Amino acid sequence: MSQNRRDFLKNLAAIGGLSMVNVSLLAKNFENKKMNSISRNSKMKLSWMPYDLQLKHTFTISNFSRTITPVVLTQLEYDGLTGYGEASLPPYLGESQASVIAFLEKVDLSGFNDPMNMEEILTYVDTIAENNTAAKASVDIALHDLVGKIIGKPWYQLWGLNKNDVPPTTFTIGIDTDDVVKQKVQEVKGQFKILKVKLGGREDKRMIEAIRAVTDLPLTVDANQGWKDRLQALDMIYWLKDKGVVMVEQPFPKYKLDEIARLTEESPLPVFADESVQRLHDVERMKGVFSGINIKLMKCTGMREAWKMKNLAQALGMKVMIGCMTETSCAISAAVQLSPGMDFADLDGALLIQNDPFDGAKLIDGKMISSDLPGIGIKKR
Amino acid sequence: MSQNRRDFLKNLAAIGGLSMVNVSLLAKNFENKKMNSISRNSKMKLSWMPYDLQLKHTFTISNFSRTITPVVLTQLEYDGLTGYGEASLPPYLGESQASVIAFLEKVDLSGFNDPMNMEEILTYVDTIAENNTAAKASVDIALHDLVGKIIGKPWYQLWGLNKNDVPPTTFTIGIDTDDVVKQKVQEVKGQFKILKVKLGGREDKRMIEAIRAVTDLPLTVDANQGWKDRLQALDMIYWLKDKGVVMVEQPFPKYKLDEIARLTEESPLPVFADESVQRLHDVERMKGVFSGINIKLMKCTGMREAWKMKNLAQALGMKVMIGCMTETSCAISAAVQLSPGMDFADLDGALLIQNDPFDGAKLIDGKMISSDLPGIGIKKR
Repeated sequence: MSQNRRDFLKNLAAIGGLSMVNVSLLAKNFENKKMNSISRNSKMKLSWMPYDLQLKHTFTISNFSRTITPVVLTQLEYDGLTGYGEASLPPYLGESQASVIAFLEKVDLSGFNDPMNMEEILTYVDTIAENNTAAKASVDIALHDLVGKIIGKPWYQLWGLNKNDVPPTTFTIGIDTDDVVKQKVQEVKGQFKILKVKLGGREDKRMIEAIRAVTDLPLTVDANQGWKDRLQALDMIYWLKDKGVVMVEQPFPKYKLDEIARLTEESPLPVFADESVQRLHDVERMKGVFSGINIKLMKCTGMREAWKMKNLAQALGMKVMIGCMTETSCAISAAVQLSPGMDFADLDGALLIQNDPFDGAKLIDGKMISSDLPGIGIKKR
Repeated sequence: MSQNRRDFLKNLAAIGGLSMVNVSLLAKNFENKKMNSISRNSKMKLSWMPYDLQLKHTFTISNFSRTITPVVLTQLEYDGLTGYGEASLPPYLGESQASVIAFLEKVDLSGFNDPMNMEEILTYVDTIAENNTAAKASVDIALHDLVGKIIGKPWYQLWGLNKNDVPPTTFTIGIDTDDVVKQKVQEVKGQFKILKVKLGGREDKRMIEAIRAVTDLPLTVDANQGWKDRLQALDMIYWLKDKGVVMVEQPFPKYKLDEIARLTEESPLPVFADESVQRLHDVERMKGVFSGINIKLMKCTGMREAWKMKNLAQALGMKVMIGCMTETSCAISAAVQLSPGMDFADLDGALLIQNDPFDGAKLIDGKMISSDLPGIGIKKR
């Protein structure tokens, strides 16, 4: 792609038109691409590049399927160091490569001299526009990576945590035919200690039976708001418990809090919030509604808010899990920093893609464990 | 003092007898003393020394007076670096130099190789015995100082904060005669932007009038649980507001939460919890009772829990202040690290003593500002 075309797209974005353009044209291979940026009189230089993650398997949840996940990779340069960040953009969440780039073009860090002044920098980034949580996370993660590199320590250490004190990660099995489901479970045999099953439809029992035909591993279930009726859900949860399921995520639509609270009270398994919780301000009202919350960097604007959400939820007596989208080892390794002390981890995102541009956290004995590299613990491949 | 006498006292402590002994005998001048420790096969060596703070003025609150505050100074050595900590022990809080030393003698860090594993280390320290919050804080502060020195950064930076974004510190005026009160206020003229007045008795209005005769500075009021009746308290708060008071601490006994909640609802000034809040688990139930909470390292076991309390209270929509006991620049500088983003700061503790063994945070334009030294930002004088 020529420089002219990129300039053309950037100009379009500057006048607000890029959200209409299919920027996945921009998202070819990583190695040959230059990062885009806006020239500013800033000590920190933010740049970005759209990138398409090629999935190893078609990914299906209760309402649709895909083979690609678009992301935007970011870099934050300062004093010879580079922090890496990422916005992952599954289409159902409303952000796109175009909207992220339009957001990043508005980020003006020239008012900040010191990357370590994270609270003020990230508070500013949050005020640039409403929503855009993945775009904000792409700045937050790059800033954390940069600051960790300045300090020379990984974030799990800066947070005082033991990198090995993490729950085993779930590996997600999407809705599919019995044969495909069984084949997927067989493929990963021995690698994982726990699996996550996407449910939420009429085929729930068939899915579980298919998995149980090939493995005894404990399971978690993500109903993705797909269940309709409290008594049926309760029956299903009892049935699932008998089948070795240990946790259920988001049984009902996110706004049905009264029904969820009653289900949680009666449920023999912990019930976790996913869609019902986005950011820090959502956490408190989930107490008494859910047993715990699923924290995802792309929903909550990044590591700083995620860390606050974790501490808030735990202080309120709630359980916590750390989740992900399909992401490179950049955003996954960032999430892994937070995972010590969590109750569940669902951090298989980078294991699902063919073209991960980073090396970072690794699957070791069923757990995603951070490297000892500073920052978020990654390096370019 | 001879080594034999120290050994004798230590042996007494080991058999549980030291709490009966006046260890202030041990607390002479800092320079000529050796730190005490228990020999353990540990990479981190914890040692301690009792020390008596000589107050510049007799200190009076609603129920008694004193001229000395006993403390215990701690050191945590690792790999050629030394972290400093402190337990401050105003007598009304129930800990003593003897009880702190008895606690510190139980601390066995030989199970921990890495000081950066703070969550596990401090969780262990918290489980050694109930209460003993100042003793625990003396380990927590020394560990934070050590870890900051290992990393080479002060904690305000590790927490991503701007060290200048702090509220002005209050300077506390104790209950005394009009002449003494006026003289005290005159003595500090120009140094402070806000004063804190200890009230809680029949002389409240006289105290305020005496101060108002010599200064127009805004005031905060600490009633120290001394008020008896809600309607009288409300009348007093309206009167105080007219006199330029901007905040009231702990109007009623700490357990009278229903009365406090009603007062807070009706009060034209924010009402803060002091005695009603000790630790992280106390914070949530203060929502709707108080407008905010006063966080003190000596009550809450130290910097790590204080940081969690601050974030929890703010996430719950409560205001926060950081307070102190009479302390050296060690514990004060530790508290200063937390103060950016707080609503009020009451960090005059080290300004009240004659024999501060440390240089650390400084009073600059009415604010206590951290040095740029790593850890808690102090050095020995």
